[in-house]
Amino acid sequence: MPEVRLNPITGDWVIIATERAKRPEDFLHKKEKKEIPSFVPTCPFCPGNEDKTPTETHSFRGDDGTWLVRSVPNKFSALTPVGEILKHKEKFKQYISGVGLHEVIIETPAHNMTTALLPLEQVERILHMYRHRLLAFYEDNRIEHVIIFKNHGASAGTSLEHPHSQIVGTPVFPGQVMNRLGEAIRNYYYVDFGECLYCSYLETELNDKERIIEQNDAFVAFTPYAALSPFHVWIFPRKHCACYGMISDAEIKSLASILKNILLRLYIGLDNPDFNYVVRTLSPRGADAKYFHWYIAIVPRVSQAAGFELGTGMFINTALPETSAQFLRDIVLPA
Amino acid sequence: MPEVRLNPITGDWVIIATERAKRPEDFLHKKEKKEIPSFVPTCPFCPGNEDKTPTETHSFRGDDGTWLVRSVPNKFSALTPVGEILKHKEKFKQYISGVGLHEVIIETPAHNMTTALLPLEQVERILHMYRHRLLAFYEDNRIEHVIIFKNHGASAGTSLEHPHSQIVGTPVFPGQVMNRLGEAIRNYYYVDFGECLYCSYLETELNDKERIIEQNDAFVAFTPYAALSPFHVWIFPRKHCACYGMISDAEIKSLASILKNILLRLYIGLDNPDFNYVVRTLSPRGADAKYFHWYIAIVPRVSQAAGFELGTGMFINTALPETSAQFLRDIVLPA
Repeated sequence: MPEVRLNPITGDWVIIATERAKRPEDFLHKKEKKEIPSFVPTCPFCPGNEDKTPTETHSFRGDDGTWLVRSVPNKFSALTPVGEILKHKEKFKQYISGVGLHEVIIETPAHNMTTALLPLEQVERILHMYRHRLLAFYEDNRIEHVIIFKNHGASAGTSLEHPHSQIVGTPVFPGQVMNRLGEAIRNYYYVDFGECLYCSYLETELNDKERIIEQNDAFVAFTPYAALSPFHVWIFPRKHCACYGMISDAEIKSLASILKNILLRLYIGLDNPDFNYVVRTLSPRGADAKYFHWYIAIVPRVSQAAGFELGTGMFINTALPETSAQFLRDIVLPA
Repeated sequence: MPEVRLNPITGDWVIIATERAKRPEDFLHKKEKKEIPSFVPTCPFCPGNEDKTPTETHSFRGDDGTWLVRSVPNKFSALTPVGEILKHKEKFKQYISGVGLHEVIIETPAHNMTTALLPLEQVERILHMYRHRLLAFYEDNRIEHVIIFKNHGASAGTSLEHPHSQIVGTPVFPGQVMNRLGEAIRNYYYVDFGECLYCSYLETELNDKERIIEQNDAFVAFTPYAALSPFHVWIFPRKHCACYGMISDAEIKSLASILKNILLRLYIGLDNPDFNYVVRTLSPRGADAKYFHWYIAIVPRVSQAAGFELGTGMFINTALPETSAQFLRDIVLPA
């Protein structure tokens, strides 16, 4: 009998289609192997082509002065960085001017690298850059919400092969985030009065154990009870905090380790699948909020949303979350 | 300057990226033309292969007794039709048994047809079948919500080429639908006190004219003010009603005409693009609800959701809705 599980964090029901559940191996994405060079002369993100990107906003550099990670404005930004916020409040035709920030974080000079294979220190640098840019974005008073995300592979929406993440600051607060925040606030004040939904949920996952993939001193990676797709992974900080920007250097070390390992498990187990990940966070102004908890969601692109998902917001997961977790947990990582 | 527009129906902000807006022609999906035969011996939906599908639940037949449209249980249903609803209410681990109905509506005997090219009477038959199955599904007391949808083309999630739609009855009410319903109820009682959000919104679109694509006595097809993607089209009934199941035979005639024409405009203008459409409706039990209004949403697959959409629920539309509407309006339909 299939189960329809409720995700208490997203408020979405997910159909766990156990009747047609696939084995983890069935999701193996057999890609044509193509040899990718470490340097591509025409790639705007490769070293030597720095003049092909807009002026760098920040970088981390090696002792010899060459960059290791850099952030640059997105040349094809969906929003415009210069301008005032204008609001139009006509009934049913409300808009706000499309002012916002959109940067690309170039994760490594090497064109053919991927997070799973990067040295740990390099993953740490990327996470340091996330923190730096997030805090900088929120200093702009026009920005109401910031999202950090990565699209890896064509089916995940990447147009450029060179490893990069993106960060977008919008002049509005997204409806989906508002709905989740509302649910978290309601839980804090009216259900669990005084307990963070995310903290208590994490406790349940830790007690259950069977969906935990990996944990360290500061973070826990698991497949949520109502995972929306096979190998959907959440990484929760153990320490309650609503904003990623407050992460300490020591915590960045722990996060780099668990993020790299999870991506490496996916890389080995599913042969370098396309994936998206997002950092869900409130602003530093809301960092002390007791009801919200920042986290990272990783969604490998092994299934496709169609009319059913579009019309209901519900997902059909053709793998048991417990099986997905076990598969990823059992991957042997190279020493 | 780009605009960030608010969709009052979905509650979502959409970035209308006018700065990088494409011309309608840029969305032309150059597909490899392959000759599709009208009959495929191995296709379970082709005439003569009726024994390859589960037992038919309903059909419309010609004078000679052969079927014209038929509905059959989905062989690979995500939910199971037999069984009792069991509820598990453990904190953070709530589930309900995956009992539900899932049928395929085979839209025509011809393997190589598509709605845009079908005779009008055949489109009417499909819509009659939607009404019939919707009402039948809701007679099952275990069913809380029913969604009718169509996936056309591989990128829209079709696995079978033979033209078909699907109808799914779930034992839960989807969170996304609940959020929209909540917004509609709030509008009815606390904003517009006594006016349906959808009715007044339609009035605004009719007054503005510039996003209207086509209208007839009973229906209006338009690109919404905050369309979430290029060529996103909504078809609203003029008459207020919360449930598709109440549609009259005369209204089905009008709907068939406008639906066929819109799909034909897409077929001609974008060279048979992949698309999804969904019928959003409440149950016949809620048909009299003054605050909800059934409608059809059509989303051509001309853009791709990635990390940004996943993490915010916001969309980036690289076409002006007004331009999309004009492009579709200006397509000359064959006489």
